[in-house]
Amino acid sequence: MSIKEGLHKKAGIIEAQLNTYFDTHDNSYQKELHDSMLYSLLNGGKRIRPVLLIEIGELFGAKKEDLIDFACAIEMIHTYSLIHDDLPAMDDDDLRRGKKTNHIVYGEAMAILAGDGLLNFAYELMTEVSLKKNSYNYLKAMKEISKAAGHQGMVGGQVADCLSEGKVGTKETLEYIQLNKTSALLTCALTAGGCIAGVSEMTLNDLRKLGTAVGLAFQIKDDILDIESNESVLGKPIGSDEKNRKLTYPSVFGLEASKAKVRELTDEANRILINFDGDTTFLESLVNYLCNREY
Amino acid sequence: MSIKEGLHKKAGIIEAQLNTYFDTHDNSYQKELHDSMLYSLLNGGKRIRPVLLIEIGELFGAKKEDLIDFACAIEMIHTYSLIHDDLPAMDDDDLRRGKKTNHIVYGEAMAILAGDGLLNFAYELMTEVSLKKNSYNYLKAMKEISKAAGHQGMVGGQVADCLSEGKVGTKETLEYIQLNKTSALLTCALTAGGCIAGVSEMTLNDLRKLGTAVGLAFQIKDDILDIESNESVLGKPIGSDEKNRKLTYPSVFGLEASKAKVRELTDEANRILINFDGDTTFLESLVNYLCNREY
Repeated sequence: MSIKEGLHKKAGIIEAQLNTYFDTHDNSYQKELHDSMLYSLLNGGKRIRPVLLIEIGELFGAKKEDLIDFACAIEMIHTYSLIHDDLPAMDDDDLRRGKKTNHIVYGEAMAILAGDGLLNFAYELMTEVSLKKNSYNYLKAMKEISKAAGHQGMVGGQVADCLSEGKVGTKETLEYIQLNKTSALLTCALTAGGCIAGVSEMTLNDLRKLGTAVGLAFQIKDDILDIESNESVLGKPIGSDEKNRKLTYPSVFGLEASKAKVRELTDEANRILINFDGDTTFLESLVNYLCNREY
Repeated sequence: MSIKEGLHKKAGIIEAQLNTYFDTHDNSYQKELHDSMLYSLLNGGKRIRPVLLIEIGELFGAKKEDLIDFACAIEMIHTYSLIHDDLPAMDDDDLRRGKKTNHIVYGEAMAILAGDGLLNFAYELMTEVSLKKNSYNYLKAMKEISKAAGHQGMVGGQVADCLSEGKVGTKETLEYIQLNKTSALLTCALTAGGCIAGVSEMTLNDLRKLGTAVGLAFQIKDDILDIESNESVLGKPIGSDEKNRKLTYPSVFGLEASKAKVRELTDEANRILINFDGDTTFLESLVNYLCNREY
């Protein structure tokens, strides 16, 4: 099985689980909200964050059934951020993964509320699981996720991204945006998986370094694809960063330096991974795939 | 001291605490985000939900310092919901409590992100406190709050409110909106306070009934004020419900029946309150004040 097929199979498990949380037949009002939440949630993402959470958790001895709710919670947080990012007041995007964005289908008000609903539901779910398991490890995982998703993480990065549009940006600003807007949530998928498995502080630190390397490589690759790919492969218009005058790695350092940086970060990630005990074959392939992907 | 003065004093304690969470000097990007979050957070609300959480918690034996973070978290959730409600795509309001709404001051993108940041921070804070205290009671309180704030609570109610605009609504729809949009978050302030204090399931049920009565009375009073008050007293334009063709208690049952309902619900709330052990004087005065207020 190729890594693409392997990832697709694991993504299928996440999607099946995501589908179990919403009863779209319960109430005429909630139905439209649930439809809107599920529309974006099931819009064919790669499920990188939840898959990483589960893979790392399993690598360090946790069971899939003890990891999957938190994995889905991270995917909900990721999805809410995409719905809000796509809004007219933000990036004003009509397409996401080849499909109409949430507000194009459900209207702006519902898109805002669907995002709010997903963010809140992620915490509702994590709280319920933590309560059921009554274990310190889950609360630790929730802390990793809440810090990464918030004003000192993803939301902060998104603000910096918005504020930097159309301005001449510094390397420091670029680093702040990439570390917080993308890397933070990807990193917390790894550390949350580690927390649930009860890893040591030393391993948590390694997971943080790994997440930062993979997150930065992933984002720079994203920026490269926005220049070099095409709309039918990417599922969204290319050249949008240049159009919106976004601060990206290629816009500051150029395309060749960006490609070299992706290679450097991929190597770093692999160096960390092979030092872990246990079978890291899939994780290594996943990291290489993410950093060399075509979309 | 009048109840108004008493409430004002307690609100001051909440505001002082809210101010401690944000360092507005740390980073040029986060600064604007924090300014925007704090602008709405410190925009002179009555602080009913956090005050209720603390009062109920103290009534059942918890200490103020063990309650105040959760009280502030509820106020953050309430504030995020107001920021998003006021957005052009939602109620499109320019004024809130006599001041410009968040998106008028900071722009729509920042208002969306400030709301997202506040919602996330509420959970970040509750998670951190739960982790520090390592007590089941806090997780139970967080579960009460997350359920009330989410798709089966406040967000669901807001969706129903949006969808019902301009349509002929049923009593069932009105009940759904009022129970979820307003009562849910007010009720969870009471139950969360109770949970932290470790009350029994029976008392939790009484707190739920109390919250529902107070929440409904509060919302109907709000709808009455939108008809009978004036802009300078209320801090926002009156008649906005009629203008937006909102489904309200007065629009379905008329003004007199609405006033009678507020009285009935206030009596019910007081009946529950006086059955609790301990000194409920302030809580009784607060309930009466909320249901008879002028703004």
